[in-house]
Amino acid sequence: MSLTNKDKLYSVIQQAVIDELQTKQLTLKNNETQFVPVSISARHVHLEKKHADILFGFNHRFEKFKDISQPGQYSCVEQVTLIGSKNEIEKVRVVAPLRKQTQVEISMTDARKLGVSPPVRHSGDLKDSAPIKIVGPKGSVDLKEGCIVADRHIHMSPKDALAFNVSNHQKVKIEINGQKGGIMYNVTIRISDRYALDMHIDTDDANAFGVSGKEKLKLLK
Amino acid sequence: MSLTNKDKLYSVIQQAVIDELQTKQLTLKNNETQFVPVSISARHVHLEKKHADILFGFNHRFEKFKDISQPGQYSCVEQVTLIGSKNEIEKVRVVAPLRKQTQVEISMTDARKLGVSPPVRHSGDLKDSAPIKIVGPKGSVDLKEGCIVADRHIHMSPKDALAFNVSNHQKVKIEINGQKGGIMYNVTIRISDRYALDMHIDTDDANAFGVSGKEKLKLLK
Repeated sequence: MSLTNKDKLYSVIQQAVIDELQTKQLTLKNNETQFVPVSISARHVHLEKKHADILFGFNHRFEKFKDISQPGQYSCVEQVTLIGSKNEIEKVRVVAPLRKQTQVEISMTDARKLGVSPPVRHSGDLKDSAPIKIVGPKGSVDLKEGCIVADRHIHMSPKDALAFNVSNHQKVKIEINGQKGGIMYNVTIRISDRYALDMHIDTDDANAFGVSGKEKLKLLK
Repeated sequence: MSLTNKDKLYSVIQQAVIDELQTKQLTLKNNETQFVPVSISARHVHLEKKHADILFGFNHRFEKFKDISQPGQYSCVEQVTLIGSKNEIEKVRVVAPLRKQTQVEISMTDARKLGVSPPVRHSGDLKDSAPIKIVGPKGSVDLKEGCIVADRHIHMSPKDALAFNVSNHQKVKIEINGQKGGIMYNVTIRISDRYALDMHIDTDDANAFGVSGKEKLKLLK
């Protein structure tokens, strides 16, 4: 059995166990599993091969700037400029590795400045999302769709899901303390054995709620 | 009795009635009084006379750009540039009339861009708030303190306070619906017979919670 198939089988069994425990309404009791670490996603771009070739040249090798919280993903030294109907924003990092479809993730503050109207979406859900222009050192791309404001979401492994007693795509709430505290609604749970436990919010949510990225936030259901 | 004294007397009586009703735990029942209109405050500057003279020339008469939600206050045609340690932001509106002390209100997003570290404060509470440089067409001011992120707050009249059953400086919560919905904590009630009912939030809160400024938001206690 190949490693990939073994991983898939493991994942299927794990999900079956989670489903069964949830059906029986069994929960692992653990006070620690109320809290989730959080990362703040600055505006960034995921590129498909065709667009990477246009923007940076054929088969360009992207250089790691730094690792981000999800295993295997990293922000790159390479940057692009985003252009909307009103304005442009320079120095927007590419996040590697390449993806199946180019995706531009910005905050609503960025969107207003640029003059684009991105919907709030899950990563990868790009149908009828906003158009935007991307400029790189070797060329530019007029993206017909692909610009979104990423929804608030929490990455976690199936084991984490078991501990938190949540299911894939479930919406939860997250409570933030402090002077600019409050509760975020509509936080999407995303479960995969490739994921490390981490909540992702954009810079607007971080600035509005006074989140620095060092906190552990309380998960409410 | 002068009009001012009459107003003061009216205000004192009104507050006494509110206090008495609250002591007796009597509330006016009215479903309408759960909801509050909201305005979004963009970055702006209130000037004291001395600084207005330096920035725009002696006894400059400020020209109304548009009325804002609080009676007698208006944003001006006149604009300034704010300069921090990292960057500057141009075209920041002056809000008239002049005040006792110069106050610069920006969002946390602005603060990060500028490279300043303003505390979250009530308007007027400026002791040990952040320094910032203001540049106008006739001169510049190195403000030693006066730059803040305004706290979330709700202006209301004593009559509104009676209907909502809240007291001055009380902290309430505000719930926002929608895809980026949630609850804002630490929203300060401010009561004066000079105030029109209106919640004020900054652009970060507006963008994070998806508030356009046309909503009525639900007050929770």
